[in-house]
Amino acid sequence: MNTKKSMLIVISGFSGVGKGTVVDLVFDSLPNIQFSISCTTRAPRAGEEHGVNYFFISEEEFEKKVQAGEFVEYTTTFTNRYGTLKSEIDKPLSKGVDVLLELNVVGAKNIKKLYPDCVTIFITPPSIDALKARLIGRGSEDEDSINRRLEEIELESKEIKNYDYVVTNNVAKTCAEKIVAIIRSEHLRVSRQNLDNLFEEEN
Amino acid sequence: MNTKKSMLIVISGFSGVGKGTVVDLVFDSLPNIQFSISCTTRAPRAGEEHGVNYFFISEEEFEKKVQAGEFVEYTTTFTNRYGTLKSEIDKPLSKGVDVLLELNVVGAKNIKKLYPDCVTIFITPPSIDALKARLIGRGSEDEDSINRRLEEIELESKEIKNYDYVVTNNVAKTCAEKIVAIIRSEHLRVSRQNLDNLFEEEN
Repeated sequence: MNTKKSMLIVISGFSGVGKGTVVDLVFDSLPNIQFSISCTTRAPRAGEEHGVNYFFISEEEFEKKVQAGEFVEYTTTFTNRYGTLKSEIDKPLSKGVDVLLELNVVGAKNIKKLYPDCVTIFITPPSIDALKARLIGRGSEDEDSINRRLEEIELESKEIKNYDYVVTNNVAKTCAEKIVAIIRSEHLRVSRQNLDNLFEEEN
Repeated sequence: MNTKKSMLIVISGFSGVGKGTVVDLVFDSLPNIQFSISCTTRAPRAGEEHGVNYFFISEEEFEKKVQAGEFVEYTTTFTNRYGTLKSEIDKPLSKGVDVLLELNVVGAKNIKKLYPDCVTIFITPPSIDALKARLIGRGSEDEDSINRRLEEIELESKEIKNYDYVVTNNVAKTCAEKIVAIIRSEHLRVSRQNLDNLFEEEN
């Protein structure tokens, strides 16, 4: 019996909340999910790789893809552009594979409009103070950049209510387990199953 | 931080699908959930206890409770009556405790109307043939009674689409794990959390 329909999962969270570590742990538990690699014009951070975390492309290359209609959605933040490639979503979904997207709140809103059945999850820190400490502590950005991120946090907080789920990242492993439970549970929703197949063994 | 709201969980499933075993395993994992004991006019089956599985009461006692408005909902099957006591639901919910109800499809529909936020889960067998085998195999009922149950199965099948989740009981332990994942995951829904409290540490 195979009543499973493939599912689109969107994960967002404040900068510095530890999304990357959590998402890596989710993939350890659910290795069959495909990570959709986004395009961005921003520079890679320490440890980030082209074709793994993002496709790091120039402003010109980005604009070319916009014109060619290669993006299902794209957004512009203060200084950078982010785009979700159609090919990264629709191909795996059509093969019955779940797809996980890491998006900012604007991207997530765009995707929810286009794929209303997608599951949206927002990762929050246990406290704003802890988040600030983490942002400053990682030392990868200057004061201006940190202040800009803190402004973003204010704006993003207002969008959490539009997500399906909100998960606190206190311990990354526990946070990942909660996300895995959400994904497994969503597959059991009546709306995601083919009830006609439930009793196919009868035939 | 306590953003948890208490939740009502309704579990239904075909007769003979093994609901009892599965529900027992769910309580092993989530001992803080309260089981709401229903009233019934039917006779106890082997192993069933008054005040544990059901309150086994007479037709007269049942009618008295109906008149006194003690039931939040009640249903009548071919030969028996089943009632859900208000006190069994509203008291624990008001204390922040999750409540689990085992109900037939009519009872579940009644409760969903009264508590639209409740989570409804339907347990199915891996196949109808396996279910028939189990029903006959347990030898606790005569042929007429078994035939009546098979008719009920037909009627109940048509109601599955109105549930939130459908879970197959192939191995009881796995089925229970899925239900535990559903309950944990539902608590993470934005609609079940108090977002104002998310950042209370700021104050």
